Amino acid sequence: MIRAAILEKPLTPIGIQTLPDPVLEPGAALLETVYSEVCGTDVHLYHGRLAGVPYPIIPGHINVGRVEKMNGDLRDADGQPLQIGDVVTFLDVHETCHDCWFCLVAKASTRCPSRKVYGITYGLQDGLLGGWSEKIYLKPGVKVVKLPPTVKPEAFIGAGCGLPTAYHAIEQACIKLGDTVVVQGSGPVGLNSAILAQLAGAVNVIVVGGPSHRLELAKQFGVDAVVNIENTTAEERVAAIKAMTAGRGADVVIEATGFPAAVKEGMAMARDAGTYVVVGQYTNNGDISMNPHLDINKKHLTIKGTWGIDLSHFYRSIQIMAKHHNRFAWEKFISGHYGLHEVNQAIADVEHHRVMKAVIDPHKKITST
Amino acid sequence: MIRAAILEKPLTPIGIQTLPDPVLEPGAALLETVYSEVCGTDVHLYHGRLAGVPYPIIPGHINVGRVEKMNGDLRDADGQPLQIGDVVTFLDVHETCHDCWFCLVAKASTRCPSRKVYGITYGLQDGLLGGWSEKIYLKPGVKVVKLPPTVKPEAFIGAGCGLPTAYHAIEQACIKLGDTVVVQGSGPVGLNSAILAQLAGAVNVIVVGGPSHRLELAKQFGVDAVVNIENTTAEERVAAIKAMTAGRGADVVIEATGFPAAVKEGMAMARDAGTYVVVGQYTNNGDISMNPHLDINKKHLTIKGTWGIDLSHFYRSIQIMAKHHNRFAWEKFISGHYGLHEVNQAIADVEHHRVMKAVIDPHKKITST
Amino acid sequence: MIRAAILEKPLTPIGIQTLPDPVLEPGAALLETVYSEVCGTDVHLYHGRLAGVPYPIIPGHINVGRVEKMNGDLRDADGQPLQIGDVVTFLDVHETCHDCWFCLVAKASTRCPSRKVYGITYGLQDGLLGGWSEKIYLKPGVKVVKLPPTVKPEAFIGAGCGLPTAYHAIEQACIKLGDTVVVQGSGPVGLNSAILAQLAGAVNVIVVGGPSHRLELAKQFGVDAVVNIENTTAEERVAAIKAMTAGRGADVVIEATGFPAAVKEGMAMARDAGTYVVVGQYTNNGDISMNPHLDINKKHLTIKGTWGIDLSHFYRSIQIMAKHHNRFAWEKFISGHYGLHEVNQAIADVEHHRVMKAVIDPHKKITST
Amino acid sequence: MIRAAILEKPLTPIGIQTLPDPVLEPGAALLETVYSEVCGTDVHLYHGRLAGVPYPIIPGHINVGRVEKMNGDLRDADGQPLQIGDVVTFLDVHETCHDCWFCLVAKASTRCPSRKVYGITYGLQDGLLGGWSEKIYLKPGVKVVKLPPTVKPEAFIGAGCGLPTAYHAIEQACIKLGDTVVVQGSGPVGLNSAILAQLAGAVNVIVVGGPSHRLELAKQFGVDAVVNIENTTAEERVAAIKAMTAGRGADVVIEATGFPAAVKEGMAMARDAGTYVVVGQYTNNGDISMNPHLDINKKHLTIKGTWGIDLSHFYRSIQIMAKHHNRFAWEKFISGHYGLHEVNQAIADVEHHRVMKAVIDPHKKITST
Repeated sequence: MIRAAILEKPLTPIGIQTLPDPVLEPGAALLETVYSEVCGTDVHLYHGRLAGVPYPIIPGHINVGRVEKMNGDLRDADGQPLQIGDVVTFLDVHETCHDCWFCLVAKASTRCPSRKVYGITYGLQDGLLGGWSEKIYLKPGVKVVKLPPTVKPEAFIGAGCGLPTAYHAIEQACIKLGDTVVVQGSGPVGLNSAILAQLAGAVNVIVVGGPSHRLELAKQFGVDAVVNIENTTAEERVAAIKAMTAGRGADVVIEATGFPAAVKEGMAMARDAGTYVVVGQYTNNGDISMNPHLDINKKHLTIKGTWGIDLSHFYRSIQIMAKHHNRFAWEKFISGHYGLHEVNQAIADVEHHRVMKAVIDPHKKITST
Repeated sequence: MIRAAILEKPLTPIGIQTLPDPVLEPGAALLETVYSEVCGTDVHLYHGRLAGVPYPIIPGHINVGRVEKMNGDLRDADGQPLQIGDVVTFLDVHETCHDCWFCLVAKASTRCPSRKVYGITYGLQDGLLGGWSEKIYLKPGVKVVKLPPTVKPEAFIGAGCGLPTAYHAIEQACIKLGDTVVVQGSGPVGLNSAILAQLAGAVNVIVVGGPSHRLELAKQFGVDAVVNIENTTAEERVAAIKAMTAGRGADVVIEATGFPAAVKEGMAMARDAGTYVVVGQYTNNGDISMNPHLDINKKHLTIKGTWGIDLSHFYRSIQIMAKHHNRFAWEKFISGHYGLHEVNQAIADVEHHRVMKAVIDPHKKITST
Repeated sequence: MIRAAILEKPLTPIGIQTLPDPVLEPGAALLETVYSEVCGTDVHLYHGRLAGVPYPIIPGHINVGRVEKMNGDLRDADGQPLQIGDVVTFLDVHETCHDCWFCLVAKASTRCPSRKVYGITYGLQDGLLGGWSEKIYLKPGVKVVKLPPTVKPEAFIGAGCGLPTAYHAIEQACIKLGDTVVVQGSGPVGLNSAILAQLAGAVNVIVVGGPSHRLELAKQFGVDAVVNIENTTAEERVAAIKAMTAGRGADVVIEATGFPAAVKEGMAMARDAGTYVVVGQYTNNGDISMNPHLDINKKHLTIKGTWGIDLSHFYRSIQIMAKHHNRFAWEKFISGHYGLHEVNQAIADVEHHRVMKAVIDPHKKITST
Repeated sequence: MIRAAILEKPLTPIGIQTLPDPVLEPGAALLETVYSEVCGTDVHLYHGRLAGVPYPIIPGHINVGRVEKMNGDLRDADGQPLQIGDVVTFLDVHETCHDCWFCLVAKASTRCPSRKVYGITYGLQDGLLGGWSEKIYLKPGVKVVKLPPTVKPEAFIGAGCGLPTAYHAIEQACIKLGDTVVVQGSGPVGLNSAILAQLAGAVNVIVVGGPSHRLELAKQFGVDAVVNIENTTAEERVAAIKAMTAGRGADVVIEATGFPAAVKEGMAMARDAGTYVVVGQYTNNGDISMNPHLDINKKHLTIKGTWGIDLSHFYRSIQIMAKHHNRFAWEKFISGHYGLHEVNQAIADVEHHRVMKAVIDPHKKITST
């Protein structure tokens, strides 16, 4: 029997249920969960802000597990055979059809209408398809990646979904060697964008965010400057960026905040003929006002919206972690470990920015206090 | 002595003055004006809506002339020597410095702070630098292109600034063979965008605009469908585009309207992971409301602002006219010929959409009626 | 019972065999063949020049058929349901895995190791997987496209595999509006490249090939100039291209010849900083000598090898045919109709350039003469 | 009076001449030379292998100097005023016309026919236009960049022309975060390419070169692996790369060797659908044999020749040095300091690989030994 945390419906406490061991269809596998992530998406899930969520649901989309059982000979994304006991992760996005117009003609697979996501758009009725559970069921075809020896599970979860999401944003940004990059937002996507901007060749990376302990972390992660939103106005922040960029603005600005107002501000931070990547507007938080003449046309600005991730972003994020684990201590993103009985607290702590990233350890014991 | 039409300041009638023959500095030339264009920019000039205009000014930025005098051996953009009597045009944009950070490091020369434009940001004090004049002074270094034999002056002026502006927009659009392209706007930039979209490989080009005689012209220019803004709501227009695109929206949408509200509508007309080019917001007509989650992020939309033109757009536009003069009768854009004494009427006619494009013929005689 | 033409092994006469009606697995369909193509690949197949061909084999990779039977509800590439009687074609490339490193990380699916091709790398043992047969078995997941009403089966077969192959080459070429494009080769891939170069915005398309009747066809298809290889040396041809391009060479050169020596010649035809696409070197015909300093480095040349096609190339080729069927009469490529009993003659006629493109009509009656 | 080293003609000893102080035309400046570089180009110059060199010539194209005199108010590439005493460098490429078809239509300014290069295509008759001289004359319009405080002159010369040349190659390579990059060649261009590949996001950089002390330096510069050409065959080297890349080959291979045979070998080291950048074939060292089917077409390979540099490469290289001076000790490239009286020895030492990079210090005293 398997213990799993289940969110029955939005805004209700998450409880633990005991579920039967699943029968593995051909090509499926069962993971013993090592860690699962709590990220902002889980806060949105709890509040019911996402469309298409089939409650009840087992949350937890980014996970590390140990291969416990397989039905058949499975292979990882490199084509190598999986073994019982391998410590792996897997792409949470599944069922991208590679058969429809969006996948094959437009080659925009993150907009495939068939795609599903573990812990978000798969519900309990679909199986053990979330990581806040002692076990995770890997459906046939799920893209599995073995964790390289240098990538500790805790570092991987610390990077979490923020790293491949940032990878996709950086890919869209087309950073050139020597660019100045502003990142709006100092949460997981923002800080991972700041890390990857450095790795992609920026020589000047500025994080605009808060509170100050997050900006402190940004500095530890090597960014060149920070601007604290707690004690500045939008005008001051734009002026600060201009002052750091010879009055021109940044070559590239990456929005990773979730606040609509940041979009208008970020356009102003970009230089003429620069690039603006919008990755943080994951949920609908309302409209903004903008000026198409000044903000887009005369500015000759390129704006790129970025939705979702695919295997390339996920796979390459892990390669990057394997290479740069000594330079960037992604485990520092984690500031709280929680058992299954503590997931409500984990969500609350993430929501209220008491922790940067919470990790769920389904095997953490309940300790009497 | 040379007669020229001069706009002393915004919202005053344009009068004719007689100016002395200029002395040619080395590398300069004098053109006898054949035709000059009246376009929407001139309406803006008249109303004082453009920044940086040093009134008084001789309007007329796109021109055809006959080489009358040269000081030295001049060459055209192909490196061929100019001859007295050659019928030529020239890039209105001048003094792009090719020396500054924007020109040489960012390679974004349309944002060069030094660039000037004949008939717009050059004033009377700078010389005979506008086409509403019997003669035009070509400053040293102005980029001259001989009109190919198949490009009649009237067709060239009919295409006008709209064609190279559309070229730049289409370049940004990165149309793929087989794409569906929506063009918002049925003025000169819009119709030229619709022409170039066809030439760039679109198999389905839809023009959204009005009034109906302009849409009729669009059809004569080969577009596959039109949507009339006079008798539709924004919702209906978006729905019409969706209905023509298997429910997905267009691969590429090009905004060429000048109305801020069109930007929000155009984003909705683009398919997920499509491209939106904003070229028509040439003046500041106010803010719009938009939703960064729905319109940019989730839509995975690429938006490209497009400012100005450079020699490549101008030169290649003329090559295209030389090739396709039989297929596209650009002279049809012209619905009125005006002498210098009629320029106020020409501006009024363009402003009130009584003509699509007015041509100034400085040598047109005043006829008694 | 189904009659099919079967090539037992290279260089043996192709005979007709009678095969049993196949049982359709779920998701499969059976087409009644309308037409199948004979192209250069079939000549290579006959000579045994291709690797990985599992003889015996039913040739015929590009086909049109009528849906006769389906096991289940099948959909076309647009997601629309297929109906009995629909006249369709299908992507010959199948089993691209969309699961491996090449497909999902490198996004280079034409180099997927799993891909198979109807009529080439599927053999008789795999089923009715070639078009030189009265019926064709569509395996589950085969990408089906309904022929639009304006695309006649004969025109589609006339365009044949050459059109999507050319589409891929043109996609790689990144033609800009106004470019000069040289196409080396006047066979099906060459002429289709010349057609698509025009549609993609080239204003000057030059075909270098032969014999003269093929160049005549090129002119009928709208190319601006031709150079006949029969009565010129390589040096003369390069000089001719230079003479037509202000001494610079072409912006883009597309190789579609199959002759290794053409590659060296084509590099010389491209302008400095131009683009050279190599699409015609489908089989190994030996080495060439080239000079990396002059031909690549100093020339600042971009060279793009182009292998295979994917659904986007195939699907969009059909959209293009639907749009431009009146402008380009692809059925003119066909200069011979053959029954199954005449396939050996068809191969010989294609090999010896007696016909441009042969079409197999499996239902053509044997007529006594 | 100014002492300068002058190469009268190829293969003759370089002597010192004393030249008069130049008169500065408006916009010109005079630098007191701090350091000049000796690179492989100077060896080619000495041997007469370059076209268009107007002997006699003062060699030395990459230089650092102190502003001694100016005629007028000069500005650097950032638009900031130059001051007497500023320690600066300047783009060796000058007179790119920004007026011709290649510059303005093709936007391929490194192929501008007018461009000249200090120390290479400017001769003694043109003035003090090489760095092996106590003073250097900066012609009007030369692009000057102030050395940032963290960029020591010795480090800048150590990086030398190899860094901006490598920048251009890396720009062409379009490295993605997580790529594997092979660099062929362990000279200055090769090692700088290996440095920039790391900075551009490669997680696995392999240098193929020799002798072993250069590979040792490569390791100090952070490369992940080296392959020594001294004790391997081409087949073994290709096999080694395949073994390090899951059998696929590298995503990107950069040729920086100067040996034609390396081009064939490098193509084999690239993975299918990978990118090959040819930057090292600066002189004509003869032809190679290659197979267009296997090496280009079937491999779906993109090959990019790379000629010359422009201001963006030069400017951004300096920004990169300012940022990464602690991580990469470019001064380690220098293994010999030479006075003007020792330039023949400097050339010989570079030619025979006794030093990686020689620096000319025109003010170095002749010391008796």
